[in-house]
Amino acid sequence: MQDFVFHQPVKVIFGRRALAALTAELNPWSDGPVLLVHGCRSSKASGLYQQLCTILTDGGLRFVEHGSVQPNPLLNHVHRGIDTARNNACSAVLAVGGGSVIDSAKAIAAGACVDHDIWKCFTGKKSIRRSLPLICIPTIAGSGSDMNGGMVLTHDGKQRKFGFAHRLLLPRVSLVDPSLTFSVLPQQTAWGAVDIIAHCLEIYLTGAIDEAPLQRNFLEGICRTTMAACRRLQTEPHSYDDRATMLWAASLALSGITTAGVGRIAMELHLLEHALSVRQDIAHGAGLAALLPGWLRFRGPIVHRRLATFGRAVWGLEENNDDKAAAMTIEEFEVFFSAIGCSCSLASWGINEDRLPELIAHCREQARIWRLSEMTDEVVNGAYRCCFSNASS
Amino acid sequence: MQDFVFHQPVKVIFGRRALAALTAELNPWSDGPVLLVHGCRSSKASGLYQQLCTILTDGGLRFVEHGSVQPNPLLNHVHRGIDTARNNACSAVLAVGGGSVIDSAKAIAAGACVDHDIWKCFTGKKSIRRSLPLICIPTIAGSGSDMNGGMVLTHDGKQRKFGFAHRLLLPRVSLVDPSLTFSVLPQQTAWGAVDIIAHCLEIYLTGAIDEAPLQRNFLEGICRTTMAACRRLQTEPHSYDDRATMLWAASLALSGITTAGVGRIAMELHLLEHALSVRQDIAHGAGLAALLPGWLRFRGPIVHRRLATFGRAVWGLEENNDDKAAAMTIEEFEVFFSAIGCSCSLASWGINEDRLPELIAHCREQARIWRLSEMTDEVVNGAYRCCFSNASS
Repeated sequence: MQDFVFHQPVKVIFGRRALAALTAELNPWSDGPVLLVHGCRSSKASGLYQQLCTILTDGGLRFVEHGSVQPNPLLNHVHRGIDTARNNACSAVLAVGGGSVIDSAKAIAAGACVDHDIWKCFTGKKSIRRSLPLICIPTIAGSGSDMNGGMVLTHDGKQRKFGFAHRLLLPRVSLVDPSLTFSVLPQQTAWGAVDIIAHCLEIYLTGAIDEAPLQRNFLEGICRTTMAACRRLQTEPHSYDDRATMLWAASLALSGITTAGVGRIAMELHLLEHALSVRQDIAHGAGLAALLPGWLRFRGPIVHRRLATFGRAVWGLEENNDDKAAAMTIEEFEVFFSAIGCSCSLASWGINEDRLPELIAHCREQARIWRLSEMTDEVVNGAYRCCFSNASS
Repeated sequence: MQDFVFHQPVKVIFGRRALAALTAELNPWSDGPVLLVHGCRSSKASGLYQQLCTILTDGGLRFVEHGSVQPNPLLNHVHRGIDTARNNACSAVLAVGGGSVIDSAKAIAAGACVDHDIWKCFTGKKSIRRSLPLICIPTIAGSGSDMNGGMVLTHDGKQRKFGFAHRLLLPRVSLVDPSLTFSVLPQQTAWGAVDIIAHCLEIYLTGAIDEAPLQRNFLEGICRTTMAACRRLQTEPHSYDDRATMLWAASLALSGITTAGVGRIAMELHLLEHALSVRQDIAHGAGLAALLPGWLRFRGPIVHRRLATFGRAVWGLEENNDDKAAAMTIEEFEVFFSAIGCSCSLASWGINEDRLPELIAHCREQARIWRLSEMTDEVVNGAYRCCFSNASS
């Protein structure tokens, strides 16, 4: 097992009455108004927005709004949020939405406390020293952003979608009510599951899990239960326990509990995917699903033993030959993705090899910032080609 | 899934260089001297004691000592520790040892801050409002006390061994170096594994895990990997990864990660065991092993489906009939305990049915304090009788 520091101080209040704790949890940071960051449409449609306004008003908490955060959130919009936070001397940020909203809220919370453009953090040129306290109310299971210090943002001008992580971006509190995700569409639910599984697989295949069997077991358990829950939710969207399992699985997948002790990990699939969804024409989870089998086939020769172990643990494969079991594992992923309506074909999203130079250039920059020296142009090119040929098979 | 609050702020510094962080981590609480709580013999024999004295002295940190903590630690000795902490105006407590040392350190850290006898917490008559900051250096895997807010203490005068838990008893920092446990004897290693497994099983069999498959998977994973590591350590005590796995498994088993979402749990086996080891004639882990199969047979009719699920997940049992699979699971436990040299016979420890009235009286008090109303005299009596008859089989 590799040396590690595990320090996960996020307070998670989880369950049917989670929102009842909002006033008490916001109170310590209510010197100024709270900045309510949301995506508008879904939270307004579900009545959640109105409910929150009532809770805040009844609790005597002032708030200003920064709404209309879109999927694959944009730096420009974050800049406006930072202005709003500063102009109103906000003392805390409340994020209500999915990963895009929470990541935007993180960028605003940190951006309001720095002199430089927050984008400089994403390009590795600057870091942060403090951040406004952040409280999250996730409304979709996937990114796990409510329990980690990571955020992903798109620079609309430069057409770059990069990620940045820092301990100061950890939310103080997350209020997680699974019933808030009842209205998440089957398709979005599936994309969320793919995101959870991608996080786990990237750790599983690039971390030192051979010497960390406990962490390996946890990762397998998260994938196993996420897949089962997601399958049921395709036809039973109001299954509380399955919604709860997906939310908690999403949070734990990147909370540190799965990575503690596995050393350096490389978020290779996310690197490849961000280059796709930077163009806003594909959802993050959809992009991951379209790339995942190809990525596994490309990585297969190196990680076939781990893929075989994964397949045996998660799908009960009884094949003893590692190469065969690894191939079967990839097929099982395709079967699962098909069952939850996720295409494994880039072509089906109108993405073809013409974009390769642009994709490779995007990965090159992120790989440099993330210090993934193994992700050379050649490797990235090979991975994408596997994905494209997978698509056409 | 049941509603829950998960808030686990313990900072765990884990690995071969963990002790190097001691000075920096103690510094914020170095107004007064630190109280060094230890068990003497093993830490002195291993050189750890000298190493710590050097680190503290070189770091300019004053310390006073409270040594000679014994297994199944005693209230009297804790009282002396509280006096030492008060007389020296200690500003922090550093626990170096196993669960007994860490639990004693918790009782001292809390006891130094209350006007009443700390024992009143164990009898449910008082609670605590603050506690001296605690830093732990565990030297044996088992109790997981380095990452939870529980402690167990024996009142030597009253012959009572009770447990108490409070958030304020959570350590601030735990420095976990697996190589410090290389010298733990095979027998003690085995008892530690039994403690970890007992914690998991009590959650598994009394919590609402049917609606919490993720938590169920985690519990199975902890047991699976703990058993594998413990088996190897019987002959390879210097296997770093296995020592690391056992320590991290022990910490996580009761860290909150396995209990979040499973609702009320009942530490029934610990209730039964504490009544045994209160007499100091049996180690805690040995007592758990001697009771566990009998307890499972007693609980069997109610929890046979869960035992079957456990056996299939952990030992790959292929029996479809739940009753049969549950019986096989109990047998697998006995095989495992035998393999690691743990007796499942109370008689082998010189404990026989003559002690039943005394055991039942002990359980009655703890059950009342822990509010385990289901643990009536009749139930407790039935459970012990199963254990005694198991012993003679």
